[in-house]
Amino acid sequence: MEGKYLPYINCPDDVKRIDEKELSVLADEVRRELITTVSKNGGHLASNLGVVELTIALHRVFSSPEDKIVWDVSHQCYTHKLFTGRGDRFETLRKPGGISGFTRRNESEHDIMSGGHSSVALSAAYGIAAANKIEGNKNFVVAVVGDGAFTGGMVYEALNNAGRAGTGTRLIVVLNDNEMSISPNVGSLARYFAQMRATPRYVRFKSQTEKALNMIPLVGRPLVKGIYNTKTFIKNIVYNSTMFEDLGFRYMGPVDGHNISQLISALEGAKEAEYPVVLHINTRKGKGYEFAEKAPDAFHGISAFNLDSGEPVFSEPSFSDAFGKFMVSAAEKDDRICAITAAMSLGCGLEEFKAKYPDRFFDVGIAEQHAVTFAAGLSSGGMLPVFAVYSSFLQRAYDQIIHDCAMQGLKIVFGIDRAGFVGADGQSHHGVFDAAFINTIPDITVFAPASFTELERAMNRALYECDGPVAVRYPRGVNTVLPDDFKEEFGDYDIYGDKTRDIAIVTYGRCFGEAVRAMKKLEDKGIKTFVLKINTIKPVNNNAVKEVLSCKNVYFFEEGQRFGGIGETFGDKLFKFSFRGNYRNIAVEGEFPGQDSVKGLMAHYFLDCEGMVKKISEECDTNG
Amino acid sequence: MEGKYLPYINCPDDVKRIDEKELSVLADEVRRELITTVSKNGGHLASNLGVVELTIALHRVFSSPEDKIVWDVSHQCYTHKLFTGRGDRFETLRKPGGISGFTRRNESEHDIMSGGHSSVALSAAYGIAAANKIEGNKNFVVAVVGDGAFTGGMVYEALNNAGRAGTGTRLIVVLNDNEMSISPNVGSLARYFAQMRATPRYVRFKSQTEKALNMIPLVGRPLVKGIYNTKTFIKNIVYNSTMFEDLGFRYMGPVDGHNISQLISALEGAKEAEYPVVLHINTRKGKGYEFAEKAPDAFHGISAFNLDSGEPVFSEPSFSDAFGKFMVSAAEKDDRICAITAAMSLGCGLEEFKAKYPDRFFDVGIAEQHAVTFAAGLSSGGMLPVFAVYSSFLQRAYDQIIHDCAMQGLKIVFGIDRAGFVGADGQSHHGVFDAAFINTIPDITVFAPASFTELERAMNRALYECDGPVAVRYPRGVNTVLPDDFKEEFGDYDIYGDKTRDIAIVTYGRCFGEAVRAMKKLEDKGIKTFVLKINTIKPVNNNAVKEVLSCKNVYFFEEGQRFGGIGETFGDKLFKFSFRGNYRNIAVEGEFPGQDSVKGLMAHYFLDCEGMVKKISEECDTNG
Repeated sequence: MEGKYLPYINCPDDVKRIDEKELSVLADEVRRELITTVSKNGGHLASNLGVVELTIALHRVFSSPEDKIVWDVSHQCYTHKLFTGRGDRFETLRKPGGISGFTRRNESEHDIMSGGHSSVALSAAYGIAAANKIEGNKNFVVAVVGDGAFTGGMVYEALNNAGRAGTGTRLIVVLNDNEMSISPNVGSLARYFAQMRATPRYVRFKSQTEKALNMIPLVGRPLVKGIYNTKTFIKNIVYNSTMFEDLGFRYMGPVDGHNISQLISALEGAKEAEYPVVLHINTRKGKGYEFAEKAPDAFHGISAFNLDSGEPVFSEPSFSDAFGKFMVSAAEKDDRICAITAAMSLGCGLEEFKAKYPDRFFDVGIAEQHAVTFAAGLSSGGMLPVFAVYSSFLQRAYDQIIHDCAMQGLKIVFGIDRAGFVGADGQSHHGVFDAAFINTIPDITVFAPASFTELERAMNRALYECDGPVAVRYPRGVNTVLPDDFKEEFGDYDIYGDKTRDIAIVTYGRCFGEAVRAMKKLEDKGIKTFVLKINTIKPVNNNAVKEVLSCKNVYFFEEGQRFGGIGETFGDKLFKFSFRGNYRNIAVEGEFPGQDSVKGLMAHYFLDCEGMVKKISEECDTNG
Repeated sequence: MEGKYLPYINCPDDVKRIDEKELSVLADEVRRELITTVSKNGGHLASNLGVVELTIALHRVFSSPEDKIVWDVSHQCYTHKLFTGRGDRFETLRKPGGISGFTRRNESEHDIMSGGHSSVALSAAYGIAAANKIEGNKNFVVAVVGDGAFTGGMVYEALNNAGRAGTGTRLIVVLNDNEMSISPNVGSLARYFAQMRATPRYVRFKSQTEKALNMIPLVGRPLVKGIYNTKTFIKNIVYNSTMFEDLGFRYMGPVDGHNISQLISALEGAKEAEYPVVLHINTRKGKGYEFAEKAPDAFHGISAFNLDSGEPVFSEPSFSDAFGKFMVSAAEKDDRICAITAAMSLGCGLEEFKAKYPDRFFDVGIAEQHAVTFAAGLSSGGMLPVFAVYSSFLQRAYDQIIHDCAMQGLKIVFGIDRAGFVGADGQSHHGVFDAAFINTIPDITVFAPASFTELERAMNRALYECDGPVAVRYPRGVNTVLPDDFKEEFGDYDIYGDKTRDIAIVTYGRCFGEAVRAMKKLEDKGIKTFVLKINTIKPVNNNAVKEVLSCKNVYFFEEGQRFGGIGETFGDKLFKFSFRGNYRNIAVEGEFPGQDSVKGLMAHYFLDCEGMVKKISEECDTNG
C-alpha cells in the first residue's frame, strides 16, 4: 500500500487526525488501492469508488464502534475496511482465508452486521437505535443504503417503523443516490435550498425558530404549521417527494457525495436532529476510474481485469450465458415467454433478451418477492413467465413460492442461477439452500442439469412438459466436463456404469462430472462403483431409488445443505423401500460455507473427485 | 338465506339487474347473512362487513371473470362469494369440505388467486394486467388492498413496478382504508375536491384539457406542467401525500366506501383513466354490527359467537395465552426482554405485555421481514428480543432468518405460534412448513414443547441457555393432555415407557399426547411399544437417535411436511448410526392440507391416536 496517509491509517482516529484539506489526497490514495486490488482479486469496484468520500466523512464525524455504521449489502465497505485495521490484509480481499468483500461480524468490531443481501440495513440499524434508546445511551446509528435498495420492499417496512420512533432515536439514514433507480430531477434552486438545509446552522436555526414560535400562545402552533406547509410546498415543487418527511423522518439533501467538506457538514447537521434523519447524497458509481464510470453495471461485481484496458482477464461462456441464449431462442418461437429479473439482468445472461423482447422483459428491481407473485399474475393471464434469479436471493421469496405459485398450481419457471458454491463472495452468497428449501414445498418440480445441453433440455421440459411451478437450477461457472460416452438426454435420472455393482454414487448437477472421475479412480484401486445421476431432484423418482436397492453401499453427494436436502429425502425413500445396506449422505453439514474458491469448497466438503474417492475408499477398500 | 334480492343472486349479472336505488336493501341482506353465518362458523367478520358496498359496486361496474378482481389476503371475500354462485353453499363456510373463508382458484372462476397472506394482490394483479397488455385485450384488473397491507413492503415493490407500466395497463388499485394504519386527516375542502376528481366527468375533463393544452406548440407543455404543479400543491397541503402519483398512478379519492352510488361513480371514473389508478376509499370495519364496530380487532378473525351479546361461545386458555403470560413474567424479571409482533398482538397473546411494557413492545405492522432483522438489531444492541409470529407468516422471513439471524450468530428468540394444523383457515394458514424450513438453516435451535408447562421451560431455555437464534414452536389450541406420570422437564428428549421394547414411536409437540394414548391402545392389542419424545427438534440429539437403534421398527409421526422435515433428518441419522430395522416416516405427504378441523387433519394424516395405532398394527401385529 502506497501513499502519504493511507499506509498509516490503522483505526478511525487516524482518519480524524488528518488535516481536513488533505482528505482529498487520502481519497485519491484509497481509490488507487481499490482499483489495484480489485483488478487482481475481483470484487465490487463501482460501488466502492462511489463512497470513498462518504466513508471518510463518516469516520470523521462518528466514533465507530461506539457509533454504529451499518452498510446495506455492504459490497461498498472496502474503504471502511481500509480505515478499520484491515489495510495490511487488504491484498487478501476475497481470497481463501482472506478478508471478506462484505462486512463480517467475526472480522472486526467495526462490522456491526454481516452483509450480503439488500435492503436490510435500515431494519437492523433501527433495531440498534431502539436498543440504544431503551438503554439510554447517546450513540448514533448510521445506515448507508443505496438507491437501488429502495426497490426492495423491506426498506419501506423499516421506514414505516423507524419514522415513528420519534425523539431520542439517534438514527441517520444515508441515502446513497447513484442514480441507479430513484433519481429526482434537481434544479439550481433545489441545490441551493438543499445546501442550506444540510448545514448544522440550518438545523439549529429551524429548531430554535420552532421553539420561539411555539412559545407564542394560541398563535404559535398555527404559525409553525404555516411554515411547515410552505416548506412542504416548495419542496414538493422542487423534489416532488415528501415521502421521508411523511414517514416521520427529517429529510436533508441532496448533498454532493464527493465533496468531503459538504458531507462532513451535512453529517454534523444530521447529528443535531432530535429524531430520525434521512440524508440524501448524490454519488457517481465508479468515480475516478473511467472504465467503471462508463459501465458501472459491468464493474458492479467483477472478476479480475486489466487495469489499463478495463477488460476482464478471463472470459469463457457460463451457465448464465447458456441460459440467456436459450431464453432468446425460446422467446423467438413462443410469444408467451416473458423474462423477469430482480436487478440482475447482466448477471443472469438476459441482456440479449432485454434488447430483443423489451415488451416481455421485466426488471423489477431488487424485489424478489414481487417478482414471484408478479410472475404468478403473468401466468394467470396466459403468459409463460421465467424468473431468472440467483439461488441465494430467491430465499427472500420462499413464502411467495409457497403461497403464490405452488398453492395456485400456476405454471411459472424459475431459472435458479448460482445454485451451489459461488466462490469469493462467501457465506452470504452461496446457493446452498435452494434445493433444501424448495424440497419443503409441495407441487413444484425441480431439475438439476449438469451441462449447457442439459440446461437447455431441462428448460424445455420445464416450459412444455410440466404442470405447475418448475425450477431449473444450475451453477455459477463454466460448462461441466462430462464423459464422451454419456448421453445428455435428461430424463428423470441416468445410470452411468454397471448398475449391478455393489456401490452406488448418487449425485446431481455438476457433481456428476466429479462422480464419473471418482468412479474411474476407484476402479483403478479395485473398488467397483457406478453412478446414479438424478436430474429431477424433486420429486425424487422412485424408480431412481429402486436402482440402488440391492447395493451394499450407497453414497449421496450433494452440493447443498444436508438438513432438509435431497440426500435426506433420498435416504427416507430407501427406508420406504426397505433398503438394507449402508447409506452415507455427504453434503454441507449444517453450516455456512466460508470464503473459498468453488474448487476449494468442493474439496472441503468431499464433493470433488478426490473427496468422493476418499469417502468411499475409507469404508469400502476391502469390499470392492 | 332470506331477503328480497340476495336469495336470487347466482352470478354477478344478477347484481347488475337490481335497481340502483335498491342496492342498499341488498347490502342490508348481505350483512344479515354475514353476521348470522360467521356467528355460527367463525371467520373474518369485521373486514367483510366493511366491504359490502364496495363488492356490490365492483360487480356492478366490472364483468367478472373477464375483468379480474384480486382480493388481498381475501379474508374480505365473503360478499364476493355470495355474488358468484356460492350463496347456496354459504352455510358451509369454513366447514370441512365446505367453501373456504378465502378465495380459492379451485372453487370458482371468479377467484383469480387463492388468498391468505397479505400484501401480494397488487403484484399478482399487475402481472395479469401486464399479460392483458401484451395480449392486447381490454379487460380490467382490480386489486382490493386494505390499508394494513401497506405496512408490508411487498406492496411498495409492486407499486414501484406497476406505476411505471404506463398507458394501456388497465389496473385499478382500490385502497380500502379502514383506518387501521394509514389515515390521512381529511377536511371539508379535501372531501369536496376528492368528490370532484372521483367522478367520470372530472377524469374526462382533465384528459381533454390536457390534450387541448398540449396542442398549443411550445407553450403547451409548460402550461400542462403548471396545472399539475398547482394540483400537486393543493393536494399536498390537503393530503400531505403524493406518493401514489409520484409512483406513476392516478390517485382518486378518498370516497365514502359505504355510499354505493359514489363508489360506482368513482369506479366508472377509474375505468376512464389510461394508466394505473389508485382509488382510495374509506370504510368502517365491522360496519352494521355494533360489537364489531366497537372492537374490530376482536372481530377480525373470530370463533363462533353469540349473535346478541357478541361474546365468544367457547373460551379456554390457548398456547398463545400461555406464551403471553410467560412473556409478561419474563419481562418483569429481565428488562432486556422485548416483544415484537407483526400486527398480531392479540392473536399472539401479547396484549398484556403491550400494556405493561410499551417501551419494549413493537408492533411493526404486517412486516415479518423487518420484524426479524429489527430483532437482530435489538439483539446486537444488547436486548433480548422475542418475535412472536404465526408459523405460516414466518415463511416470509426465511431469508432474514438465514441472513440476519443465523449468519450473524445473534441471539433472537422466535415464538412460533400456530405451528401445525390450524383448522378452518385451511391451506394458506396451516403451520406445516416451519419445522422443515428452519431445519434447512444452520446454527439455529428449535424447541417443540407439548404443553403449557413445557412452553415455559422451552422459553427459559431459549432465553438463558442457548447461543444464537432459537425458535420455540407451539400449536394453535388448548393445552395437550399428558399422562400423569410424565415429568415435564424438557431436556432434549424424553423416553416414555420401556425402551427395551422393539417398537418405538418417535414424535414431537402435541402429537406426544396422541402417541401415549396409541401406546396404551397398542398394548391392549398385544403390541408393545414405547415413545421417544423429541423436544429439541433441531439439532436432533444423537443420543435420542441412539435410544431406538436396537428397535426392529421405528415410527416417526410429524405434524408437518415430510420432505425436508425432522423425520427425514432423524432417518438420515439412523443410517449414520447403521440402524438395521424398519423406519417409517408419517407426515404431511408433500401437499397442502385442506380445510378441516385440527382433529380431522390429525386423523387424515394418521397423526392421532387411532391413526398411529392403524399404521403400527398394519405392520407389527404379529411382531409385538
